Amino acid sequence: MEMSSKLLEKAVAEISLLPGIGKRTALRLALHLLKQPLEQTQHLSNALLRLREDIRFCTICHNISDTEVCEICSNALRDASVICVVEDVRDVMAIENTGLFKGLYHVLGGKISPIDGVGPSQLTIVPLVERVKQGNVKELIFALSSTMEGDTTNFYIYKQIKDYNIVTSAIARGIGVGDELEFADEVTLGRSIMHRVPFETSLRDI
Amino acid sequence: MEMSSKLLEKAVAEISLLPGIGKRTALRLALHLLKQPLEQTQHLSNALLRLREDIRFCTICHNISDTEVCEICSNALRDASVICVVEDVRDVMAIENTGLFKGLYHVLGGKISPIDGVGPSQLTIVPLVERVKQGNVKELIFALSSTMEGDTTNFYIYKQIKDYNIVTSAIARGIGVGDELEFADEVTLGRSIMHRVPFETSLRDI
Repeated sequence: MEMSSKLLEKAVAEISLLPGIGKRTALRLALHLLKQPLEQTQHLSNALLRLREDIRFCTICHNISDTEVCEICSNALRDASVICVVEDVRDVMAIENTGLFKGLYHVLGGKISPIDGVGPSQLTIVPLVERVKQGNVKELIFALSSTMEGDTTNFYIYKQIKDYNIVTSAIARGIGVGDELEFADEVTLGRSIMHRVPFETSLRDI
Repeated sequence: MEMSSKLLEKAVAEISLLPGIGKRTALRLALHLLKQPLEQTQHLSNALLRLREDIRFCTICHNISDTEVCEICSNALRDASVICVVEDVRDVMAIENTGLFKGLYHVLGGKISPIDGVGPSQLTIVPLVERVKQGNVKELIFALSSTMEGDTTNFYIYKQIKDYNIVTSAIARGIGVGDELEFADEVTLGRSIMHRVPFETSLRDI
């Protein structure tokens, strides 16, 4: 695609480096910005730069935070004895949105995946083990995605903390609330039968 | 969606102002940038700002250009007597990609659309009529999209230039090259029959 302006070409090239955005979409976005007031582009450009330059990660749970210790970790009302291990920041948001979990988190920053060149050292596993070693943690909840990489990561962590006498659990896998049984895959349906809960327990959720 | 960082929240809000990008995609893009080297965000941020602040439009055809008169308008090898009227910059690129048109362009910047609050004065119609008045133009090709707004715009321009004794034409509508007849809509198929071309002429394209 030949463009009449080097500035436009450069902007399109940079935008299309973003995941899921091709040259065509990038061009549409660039031309859209040109039609908007100058302030919109200034705000966007500035917000991106400030995010990338000034962002900090909580020194305890490694969640994105504007302060050294995030709001969740510094909240005295939360149960510091339960840690939910997640892959990334979006998982924290998703669980927080349920409003049901009152413990703390640990953001790994990914999962072990040799094929993508991600080893344990690129994740925040050492700091997690440190948190467990300190002795205040009673339970670790694994909430990684249920893939080969997720399972590998869970097991890698499990091996390192199993001697510290804490409870480890994994989030329940099963049929989604409101989903039809006939459309569920066998593995999920199988798990939801194997890990069935007492009927009285399930009543409590309603 | 509650976020643990105001910086992240601000960046997501700004990104999701872009067309076709929701909060969820914006968050994915913002988190992606955080994982990339700082330079990528700096380049992106800078490219957007420079595009918006420094971009210029050709004073003749209103195409995006880094110079006062764009490369097409200043190319002496092109036929200045034929002007192709298009909606926006992308249309110029599309036609240029065919390599078949050797005239000049006129970018309107949109089409007349009362429902979107776009009147003739927001488009570059006055400068177009000026170009025709100057007397060097022999033919005007309307290449706007074939919608009610496009037809209205064509007709509005036509009324203003019809006394200047120039040829006006519209790009051919018909079945796309390689398309199956059975899948074409009636209007398109109807037009392709009404505006049929001599067989010898069609042979020349092969």
